[in-house]
This record gives sequence, structure tokens and C-alpha cells, in this order.
Amino acid sequence: GSELLEAERAKSAINISTLSTFLFTNEGLARKRRVLKILQSEKVFDKSQNYFAGRIDRFETALARAKRLRQIAVRHGWSNEDRMAANDLISEPGPYGLHESMFLITLRDQGTPEQHEKFLKMAEKYKYIGCYAQTELGHGSNVRGLETTATWNPDDKTFIIHSPHLTASKWWIGSLGRTANHAVVMAQLIINGKSYGPHPFVVQIRDLQSHEPLENIYIGDIGPKFGYNTMDNGYLLFNHVKVPHISMLAKFSSVDLKTNQYKRPASASLIYGTLTWVRSTIVMQSGGVLARGVTIATRYAAVRRQFQDRDAQEWERGENQVLNYTTVQIRLLPLLATTFALHFTGKAMMALYAANQKKMSQDAGKVGGPQRGAGPEETHSGSDLLADLHATSCGLKSLASYTAVEGLEVCRRACGGHGYSSFSGIGSWYADYLPTATWEGDNYMLTQQVARYLLKAARGVLKGSREPSNDTEFILTNFLSRQDTGAAFDILGNDADLVAAFAWRSAFLTFEALKHRDEQKKAWNDLLVDFYRLSRAHSQYMVVKNFYETLQSTSNELDVETLAVMHKLFRLYALHTLESEASEFYTSAAVTVRQIQLARTTAVMKLLAEIRPHAVRLVDAWDFPDWQLDSSLGRYDGKVYEDMFYRASELNPLNRVTVDPYPDSGVLFKRNDAGSVKPKL
Amino acid sequence: GSELLEAERAKSAINISTLSTFLFTNEGLARKRRVLKILQSEKVFDKSQNYFAGRIDRFETALARAKRLRQIAVRHGWSNEDRMAANDLISEPGPYGLHESMFLITLRDQGTPEQHEKFLKMAEKYKYIGCYAQTELGHGSNVRGLETTATWNPDDKTFIIHSPHLTASKWWIGSLGRTANHAVVMAQLIINGKSYGPHPFVVQIRDLQSHEPLENIYIGDIGPKFGYNTMDNGYLLFNHVKVPHISMLAKFSSVDLKTNQYKRPASASLIYGTLTWVRSTIVMQSGGVLARGVTIATRYAAVRRQFQDRDAQEWERGENQVLNYTTVQIRLLPLLATTFALHFTGKAMMALYAANQKKMSQDAGKVGGPQRGAGPEETHSGSDLLADLHATSCGLKSLASYTAVEGLEVCRRACGGHGYSSFSGIGSWYADYLPTATWEGDNYMLTQQVARYLLKAARGVLKGSREPSNDTEFILTNFLSRQDTGAAFDILGNDADLVAAFAWRSAFLTFEALKHRDEQKKAWNDLLVDFYRLSRAHSQYMVVKNFYETLQSTSNELDVETLAVMHKLFRLYALHTLESEASEFYTSAAVTVRQIQLARTTAVMKLLAEIRPHAVRLVDAWDFPDWQLDSSLGRYDGKVYEDMFYRASELNPLNRVTVDPYPDSGVLFKRNDAGSVKPKL
Ligand SMILES: Cc1cc2nc3c(=O)[nH]c(=O)nc-3n(C[C@H](O)[C@H](O)[C@H](O)COP(=O)(O)OP(=O)(O)OC[C@H]3O[C@@H](n4cnc5c(N)ncnc54)[C@H](O)[C@@H]3O)c2cc1C
Ligand SMILES: Cc1cc2nc3c(=O)[nH]c(=O)nc-3n(C[C@H](O)[C@H](O)[C@H](O)COP(=O)(O)OP(=O)(O)OC[C@H]3O[C@@H](n4cnc5c(N)ncnc54)[C@H](O)[C@@H]3O)c2cc1C
Repeated sequence: GSELLEAERAKSAINISTLSTFLFTNEGLARKRRVLKILQSEKVFDKSQNYFAGRIDRFETALARAKRLRQIAVRHGWSNEDRMAANDLISEPGPYGLHESMFLITLRDQGTPEQHEKFLKMAEKYKYIGCYAQTELGHGSNVRGLETTATWNPDDKTFIIHSPHLTASKWWIGSLGRTANHAVVMAQLIINGKSYGPHPFVVQIRDLQSHEPLENIYIGDIGPKFGYNTMDNGYLLFNHVKVPHISMLAKFSSVDLKTNQYKRPASASLIYGTLTWVRSTIVMQSGGVLARGVTIATRYAAVRRQFQDRDAQEWERGENQVLNYTTVQIRLLPLLATTFALHFTGKAMMALYAANQKKMSQDAGKVGGPQRGAGPEETHSGSDLLADLHATSCGLKSLASYTAVEGLEVCRRACGGHGYSSFSGIGSWYADYLPTATWEGDNYMLTQQVARYLLKAARGVLKGSREPSNDTEFILTNFLSRQDTGAAFDILGNDADLVAAFAWRSAFLTFEALKHRDEQKKAWNDLLVDFYRLSRAHSQYMVVKNFYETLQSTSNELDVETLAVMHKLFRLYALHTLESEASEFYTSAAVTVRQIQLARTTAVMKLLAEIRPHAVRLVDAWDFPDWQLDSSLGRYDGKVYEDMFYRASELNPLNRVTVDPYPDSGVLFKRNDAGSVKPKL
Repeated sequence: GSELLEAERAKSAINISTLSTFLFTNEGLARKRRVLKILQSEKVFDKSQNYFAGRIDRFETALARAKRLRQIAVRHGWSNEDRMAANDLISEPGPYGLHESMFLITLRDQGTPEQHEKFLKMAEKYKYIGCYAQTELGHGSNVRGLETTATWNPDDKTFIIHSPHLTASKWWIGSLGRTANHAVVMAQLIINGKSYGPHPFVVQIRDLQSHEPLENIYIGDIGPKFGYNTMDNGYLLFNHVKVPHISMLAKFSSVDLKTNQYKRPASASLIYGTLTWVRSTIVMQSGGVLARGVTIATRYAAVRRQFQDRDAQEWERGENQVLNYTTVQIRLLPLLATTFALHFTGKAMMALYAANQKKMSQDAGKVGGPQRGAGPEETHSGSDLLADLHATSCGLKSLASYTAVEGLEVCRRACGGHGYSSFSGIGSWYADYLPTATWEGDNYMLTQQVARYLLKAARGVLKGSREPSNDTEFILTNFLSRQDTGAAFDILGNDADLVAAFAWRSAFLTFEALKHRDEQKKAWNDLLVDFYRLSRAHSQYMVVKNFYETLQSTSNELDVETLAVMHKLFRLYALHTLESEASEFYTSAAVTVRQIQLARTTAVMKLLAEIRPHAVRLVDAWDFPDWQLDSSLGRYDGKVYEDMFYRASELNPLNRVTVDPYPDSGVLFKRNDAGSVKPKL
């Protein structure tokens, strides 16, 4: 395989290192190298047994790794970025996962200074190890429906946390099953018989010494999952457990100790900021998530040879690399383009988030601090931006995680039989990433948020009272103004027109949906399918636009040759998406049947052929160390078969078992030297 | 959950038992009950630890089950159908899997009476336990490229089996890794320096006593996989291993002992019959495979409640069953329709196969036995039927397995977070079924066979020399005759027109492809994407047609009410497929933009609402025992949460572990009573 990959690399002039730098910055690349070196020097991070070990061994190893990582972080004084780089390289969820994310963040963002002193300090020292317990057996998406109660007792100034039914059991809570000794518990706050909705409470759940559950608290791991098995997702039930007043995280709302009255939250937007941030992060990561699969499959498809080309001449000896078959190209190369599209979109998403944060803190300064509630939407300047941010993060989270999930499986399948081996490195990665389509807002449900926003924007635009204040309002306004003259987008000849066609479709679907809802008064539920399509269309528009604008603003960071290929990738992403969703583009009259036909049979096929020679260098630019990919098929050096064979014959513990194969014999294993499959810790 | 499912069952008048009988016959249903009772009475088949055990334990259990099953089959004198029913119920691949299928079938079909005596008898007694070793590390799809050699030695009348390179290593071979003592090995036959292509050899690979590999034979298990881990897929290398003349399976071709000359195969069609049969079986099973996921997801979606409907009135108390949300319906109900569509198509596929077998043996009788080679295609009457059978089995295998694979994941995701738990019962089923998309012809590659057949048929039709001899020729002819007058299909009003629209699109794409290939002389490779689309279109046509025809010919087997719902399912399948593939239907001018819009926004949505009340009864008719589904979410009685909780808290071995969670402590597990997770064997 090595010669084949060398030949691939020789025939393209893509500048891998400038492209990598463009994607990740020199600082990011250097950090990765530095962290990688440390991880590789520690035997606990040795990955060679990962694919063989059973759940309990894997969990034990993950715990050892989590501990070691924390020790290293302290010793080397790692920044947050360093730790995240390490997690990326290790690529497995671990038992401190929720402690180091949602638990700490929630304490920080929603705790008062007093609570920081009491809880956050201990948590930062890993004396308190926590989790974020929101979802219950009976309720996930519908947070307001949570059944766990926290009842205020004015007599002794405590809350009673209680799980009234089996379905009130907290469920799916990462790091809870075996690891955490504290939890942020979302529970219905009840004061004087009245419910004030879910609020966060910090609750100690296990003894700090024995690590056994405290009295009247029932905890366990929820069992094996499709993936994510190095994490101890857990369940948690309370039987009238008393906690002090300070347990309720009180930065935004609280119970007044003296009056026993509820104090209203400052601004919902501030509270939900964390969710937006988490979704933005998912968008940011999606390109890289997908790129792992694309890297593995592309390299393998360049090494794998199968069949002579049917039309090959006598003198064209040898078998064809499967990457040369157009049915392999049509699966992999648009996904390769997608990795960049998502990456640039992620960056734009993060920039939008940052702009919003800045704006909010400026506004907060102006009007007297974040304690002041948001005024009516029309007058509060930060509010539109916030609504836009919220909708953008919902739509893009849904589209980006969906695209990455689906794409990874396409990559795995493109590898034929060997893709099914654990050694492909795609399957486990896919399985661990998969819940991203469900958590932080189920991908279907999030689309209702996007639709709600677009409908509202469209209503505003129809009123026509003011200038468009953001891009969404702009494309809606533009659509209205040209609605009667029609569109004539030169999608095959002009890149800006291609972007405009996506905008047109999104605007068209928005006004269609508005008509159904406002004029025809259709029930919300009857429109969910349309809303899903609308959100998808709008989000695809944003991705196409971000890709386009990134390339527009890239003047001298990339050399001409590399930039030219990036332009082709842009066109491939846009045209391939367009022809996959062709019918919405017709219906909206953004394009003609003839244009779609040309896109499908000519333009896309031509782009595949043009990008093909650069495929290996393009995935190289994603800069995944072999150690991270842990894949026989995706090795940088192309030694696919040697590595498959080595892992199967040398590392595989099942080969240390001899069976008695005959049905009449009660003996199963005549010899079993499989032993433990844990790495030496 | 129980009340909810009871209410669901109460509100539909579908006759479950007549529908089940219609699907499976009374005999089939009775067989299932009988076999199930036996299996449930044996503790080795207890499934309660399946989701918890690691690979080696799972393999050991699978071996125990395989042995026990064989003993039971002998004791009860089971038929082949009984055994298959048992496998369906157990639902996990086992170490005798390839012995009981490809090994025995190949010996039977390709062995001479002498070879039957020597090999088959021993194999039927499970003294020889075998596997089918075709694929190699370097070659799977391209069988002609296999590298293992079998060189004829005229001096001592033996073959030398040899693996010249690492890539010649047999790979992926089911039942080989630990279990088999014999293998059918496909190897390049070499006589006197000349290669005659791959041929099957029966080779002993392990000692019958010690079960250790024989000298110069290297065998092992290939390691863990995305699924299928109860099977020991293996590798196998030969270092100049000598086998006698009788080892080459000689029914169709052989080496003459006296002259050392190669004897040509009788008829390629006879040899490839097995492949067609295997593909037909995949088509036959696909409906049931998908129905498992649909059953689980539909029952769960009827039990799961989340949110109040946005437009709900004050008096509509309580949360909505998620099955009422149209974004859940649009995912599950078309798949429910698909299960029936695939099932009826599978039956038609099997009937076509049987008709072909009959025809072939009649022809064989006429012209002097199967030994006679097939004449030129145009004159041999069985030949067209065979080509049609071959193409049909390729196209439908590709579409059916693709549809089932994709559909299962849609079902899993529709279950939200709980779908990700192993206890959903969908994930492991999906993972085990997944390779069906790759083996017996990779789903992408098979479509080239379909296209080749359609192109040939189209060329024949264009010549116009004779009447259409089968349905494919008929629809192509019909298209040509109406090409200039155009189509005006009343897809929304008339079911026959709906079928005709699918036929039209298939014929349109066929002639388009023909134009590209024959007139524009495009390279084969440049047309693969079009071929893929063509095959998909043609196969969808066949599925729609089979569904339609099944209902047409169903006079009194189903009551009126049930039949009416089945008609709706037909329309839902057809219209939903049509609108998902809308752009091909426009382009071919089979339908108008307006029709598609109406199908999408009106007809499909209306069908969802009409089918919704019958959903639970419809999945009940698939008649899966709970024992088979092994799913908390899909339980017949709806006790979802109780079962999730029981499995997590009582069965989960990780909960018998106490950890030390602190990073500074080197202790990982303070207590580990997890013990073994094997069922008591
Ligand atoms: C691996 C993993 C880790 C997790 N970690 C944590 C954690 O650490 N802490 C925590 O609190 N939670 C955690 N969760 C839970 C997760 O947040 C929820 O599973 C998720 O929010 C989905 O909610 P649900 O399971 O209730 O889905 P449901 O809401 O039950 O969804 C079921 C189906 O109904 C549909 N549906 C529901 N409501 C509507 C509606 N109104 N309109 C249309 N369709 C609807 C959905 O689209 C879906 O198809 C985790 C989950 C997983 C899988
Ligand atoms: C679980 C499992 C069990 C198996 N059991 C057995 C067994 O018991 N015995 C046995 O002999 N084998 C077995 N196999 C092997 C199986 O039959 C092969 O994996 C399968 O035939 C695919 O071949 P491949 O892996 O060589 O794919 P490849 O041919 O390498 O395919 C790789 C990619 O290239 C593409 N491609 C290849 N050639 C072309 C072309 N000409 N045109 C366009 N695209 C092309 C494919 O579409 C695919 O995307 C098993 C496999 C699995 C996964």
C-alpha cells in the first residue's frame, strides 16, 4: 500500500501544511504534537487492547486514563485547550467527562460566589466529582415535564428532593453510574404547594470516603449501550432526601430565606446561553468528526485495488484502485467537501456566538447589569441577535450532526468487508458519536425552533416596517422583492448565484410554511414535516454561504493551487447538495430541470474527476496522527494488510482459545489462555 | 405503558390473526410456537446476559447454543424449516453458521457422488465441521483475482494449495476462526503452468482429535467486528499443502486423472445458482428484518409521551404519545408500509426462483440433462428467464438490504435517548444485520449487473424483432410506444397509474443510460452512478408492482377492513417513495410538479393520519414473540420503564463494582464482584 499512497501524494500539488495551518492555526497544530508526545509516552494510554476488551475492562481502563490525564494536566499546568486536545487524541468518553464539562460549567455559570466557594472549589480540586442530572426515565426532551421534586420546607429552611415515580428516576446521566459523588439535579421547585418549574440543585450522592450511595439514594449504571461504553451513564432515585438552602444554584433565581418567596430569574437568555454554547461546539466539531471517517476511507480506497477497469486497454495492467470507481467517488468526495464546509461553518458559528456574548455584555453594562430582564423583543437590541443565534445553533446542530453521523457510515460501508472490522476504526467512532444526533436537542425537534424563528422573521419582513437587520431578514426581503420577476440563477457558471439559489429555496419554503400556518391555519403538528424540511434547507444555505464566504475572504493564506481545489470542493458540496434536494429547488423555481440534469450528469461528475487526484493530500491536511485514528485501513503509510494481520494474529485474545467443536461433547473451550484484555495500567 | 397499548389495540379493527396467517401461513406460525417452547425451556438459550457479555464469553455461549441446538434437532427430528425458525428466534450468528449453510450446500451442489460419500456424509454427522473460504485479505468482490493457488501435480496426482502472499490469506471466513476442521477453499486451479480460474477444494485444516491446525496451515480468528461477534470469522494461510485428487469438487469441472487435462464446466448458470438463491433469501428476509425495528419503535412511540400538543385545548390533559407527532409518523409509518412491501416482494422473488428451477430442470430433461451447456442466449428458452432472475435478484438484494439497514437505524433514532441503550434491542440487531449490505455482492456493485441486463433488454426491444417475453421487455416496449404521446399518470387517483409511473421512470432511465453508453460511447466507469440510480429505480418499480399485485390477487384471505388498510399502506409506500425520488419522476415527465407537491403535502400526510390508529395492530401482526425481540422498548405489554429499570439495576454486572474515583489514588476498583457474565450453560 505504501507505494500507492506515495504515488497519490506525488501527483497533487496541494500544500498540505499551509492548508492544515489554515484549518487549525500553527498554535493548534503545535499543541497537538506536544500533547500527543506526552500521551504516547504513558502506557496507560496504549490503545492496542481497546477493540478487544469487554465493557468492565474498558471502563476500568477509562477510569485509569481519566485519573492519569488529570495528574498530567496538573503536572504540566495544562490549559483547557490542552486538555481538549488530549481528549481528541484519546478519542474515548471517560468517567470524568461530565464532571469536567457540564458539572463545572453549571456550578460556575449558575452559582453565587458563596456557592462557588462551597462547591466549585472542591469540584476543581476533584474532591467533589460531579455529573449533570437532568434527563429522567420518563422525560428527556420535555424538561418542563420532569418529575423529580424539590420541595421547600420553610420550617427548617431545607429542600426535600424526591422521586415520586419510577419514571422520575434520573437516567442517562454521564459519570453518575459509578464515578460521581455529587450531582447537579434538575428538579421541580415547589414552594408552598406551588410549582415553579425545574431548577438546579447541587446534591451529594455518595459518601466521600466509602463511595457508597448515601442513605435514601439509589444509584447505578444504566447498562450497555450501542457505544459510549467507557462512560458510566447512570440512574438516580431519591427517597425524600433533605438538602440545605445553599444547594439550589441561585445566581438567576432563588428562594428568599426570610420571606420564603421565590425570586424570579433575571433573563432566560442568560440561563440558556450554555445550551447555545454546547450546540455551537457540536457544529464546530462536526467537520473533524466526519473527516476521520473520510480520511480512513479515502486512504483505504487508494490502497485497495479490485478488478480491472471494464474499458481498460490491454496494456493497462493491474487492478484498479477502488477510488477510481465513480460509485466510490460519489460517496467519498462530496463528503470530503463536506468536511471543509462543516469546519468553516463551525468557525462562523463560534464567531457568531462570540459576537453575541460581546453584545450581551455591552448591553448589560448599558442597562444595568445582567440582572435586568430583557425588554420587549422589538426594542432590546441584543434580542434579535440572540434569537438569530439560537435558531442558527439549533438548525446547524441538527444538520451538522446528522451529516457527520450519516457520512461516517457511508465511509465505513465504502470500505467493503474490511470496513466492518473493528480495526477499520470507523465503527467505534461512529457508535460513540451517534448520540450527538439525539442529545442537546433531538435533531428532529430542534427544527421546530428554527421554523419558529423563520416564521417570526417572515412576519416581520411582510410588515415591512424596517430595514433587514440580519442575513435572514435580508434573504426573505430579497425573495419578496423578486418574487414576481422570478429567479434566474446561473448555478453552473456563477458561485454567488449558487449561494443565492440556496437562499431562494430557503425563503420560498419559509413563506410557504407561513402561508400554511397563518393563512390556512394548519395545526402546528401538521406542519412539523414541512418545518423539518425548512430547517434543513435554511441550514444548508448557511453552510453553503459560510463555505463561499470563507474562500472569498481567504486572500493570501492559501496558495493559488490549493485555493483552486478548495473552490472545486465548494462547488462539489453545493451542487451535490442541490441535486440531492433537487425537487425543492424545482418547486421553488430556483433552477430548471435542465440545470439539475446538467449538474447531475456533467458538473458533479467533472468535479469528481478534478478533485480525485488531490483526495489523499486533502485528507492528509486534516492532520490526524495514526495514533488518533487507530485504524488499519487509514494508516498514513498505507500498510493496511500488514496491520490487519498483525492485530488479528498477534493481539487477538480469542486466538488463545482452543474449542471442542463437536456437538456431542459438553466441553466448550479445551484451552483458554485468553487472559485479561486490559492494557497494563 | 400497558393501558396505552391496550387502548391502541382497542381502537383498530385490523384482524391480527388473519393478517399474520396471510403473511406466514398457519403452518409457519405453529412451527414458531412449537420451536419457541423448546428453546425457552433450555437455560442455555436464556438471553438475559447477552447484552452484557464480552466477546469471548459471548462466543463461548454461542458455541454452547450451537451444540445444544444440534442435539435438539437430532432428538426432535427437526426439518430444515424448524432449524431456521430456531435461528430466527435465537437471533444471533453462531459458530456452526457456515457449516450448516454454505459448506453443506457447496458439498451437495458441487460434489460428485463419490465426494458426497467421502465428505458430505461426515459433514452431515458433524464429524467434519466446515466453512466456505472464498474471500481473501486482498480480494472479495473480485473473485477472479483470488491469489490462493491449487497447482496440479501430475506425478503424484495431487494438488498443492498455497498462499503466495499475505494478501492471499483467506479472510472473513465464518466459522473458520476457531470452529471448523474443514474448509471449502476457492483457489486458482493451475495445470501445467496454466491458470483455469478459481475452483472449490475441500481441505482438512485442523486435526480431528486435538483440533489444532494441521502442519503448514495457519488459522486464526480475525478479531472483533462492528457486530457478528458471536461468530468466529477467520483467516487461513497455506504453505504448500498437498491434497488428493478427490479434494477438488468435481460435479461441474475436474481434472482428468489419466490425461491430466482440465474438463470444462457444464454450464455457468448452474454453478451460479447458489448465489442467486442466497440473494433471493436475503430479499425474502428483509421485510421481517426491518419489521423488528418497526415493531419496537412503533410500540415504544405509543407508550412514550412527551410534551403537550402545542395546539392542544385546555381540556386535552396529559402529554402526547410521540407516535402522534407527524415527524415521528413520517419516519415510522412509511417504514411500516415498507415491511409489507418487502415481504411480498420476497415472496415474489422466491416464486420467480422456483419457476426458474422448474424450467431449468424441464429443459434439462428435454435436451439431455444439466450436463449440456447452454446454447446461444437467443435460442435457449431458459436463458432469458435466467438473466431476468439474476438481474432481479441483484437489484432487489441491493435495494432490500439497503432499505432494511437504513430503516433499522431510523427506528432506533426515533426512540430518542432510549434507542441508544442496548436494551432497545435495535442496535445489536442492526449491527449484526449490517454486513448484508456488503456480502453476497456489495450493494453498489450489484447494480452494474442490473444495468447490464436492462441495457441488453433495451437493445433487444429497440431492434423490435419479437414480442416482449417478460415484464421488463414489456415496460420498455410500452415506454417506446408512448414516448411521443407522453405520460399522464393519475398517481393520486389511480393505483395502477401509480405503478405505471414507476415503470415509466425505470424505462426512461434505461433508455437514457443506453444513449450514454451506445450513442455517446461513455466509459463504463463514468456511468456507474447512473447505473446505480437505474437499478434502484427499477427495483423500486418491482417492489411497488409486487405490493400492488399481491393486494389485487388477495380476494378472501383478508377481511375488508384489513385489506383496506393494506391498500393505504401500499399507497403510502408508493407515494412516499415517489416523493423522496421526486426529481427522477419529474425529469422523466412521469408526473408534474403539482402532483408531487400534492403527494407531499396532502396525500402522504392524509395517509399517515389514516394509518396511525392501526399502527400497533399492524406491527402485532408481524407476530414477534418478546423472547425474540429481547427489547425493553418493544415489549408487547408496554412495560417499557419497568423492564429498563430491571435490566439496569438487577442484571447489570457493572453495578457490582465500586470504584475509587479520586485522581490521586492509584486504586481503580475498590470492590469488583462483577464475576462472569455468561449465562449458566
Ligand atoms: C449517550 C447519552 C448520554 C446522555 N447524557 C446525559 C447527561 O449526562 N445528562 C442528562 O441530563 N441527560 C443525558 N442524556 C439524555 C439526553 O439528553 C436525552 O436522551 C435527549 O434529550 C432526548 O430526549 P428523550 O430521550 O426524552 O427523547 P424523546 O423526547 O422521548 O424523543 C422520542 C421521540 O419523540 C420525538 N418527539 C418528542 N417530542 C416531540 C415533539 N414535541 N414534537 C415532535 N417529535 C417529538 C423525538 O423526535 C424522538 O423521535 C444522554 C443521552 C444519551 C443517549
Ligand atoms: C461479517 C462478514 C462475514 C463474511 N463471511 C464470509 C465467508 O464466510 N466466506 C467468504 O468467503 N467471505 C465472507 N465475507 C467476505 C465478503 O463476501 C466480502 O467482504 C464482500 O464480498 C465484499 O468484498 P470486499 O470486502 O473485497 O469489498 P471490495 O471489493 O474491496 O469493495 C471496496 C469498495 O470498492 C467498491 N468497488 C470494488 N470494485 C468495484 C467495481 N468494479 N466498481 C465499482 N466499485 C467497486 C465497492 O463498492 C466498495 O465500496 C464476509 C464479510 C463480512 C463483513
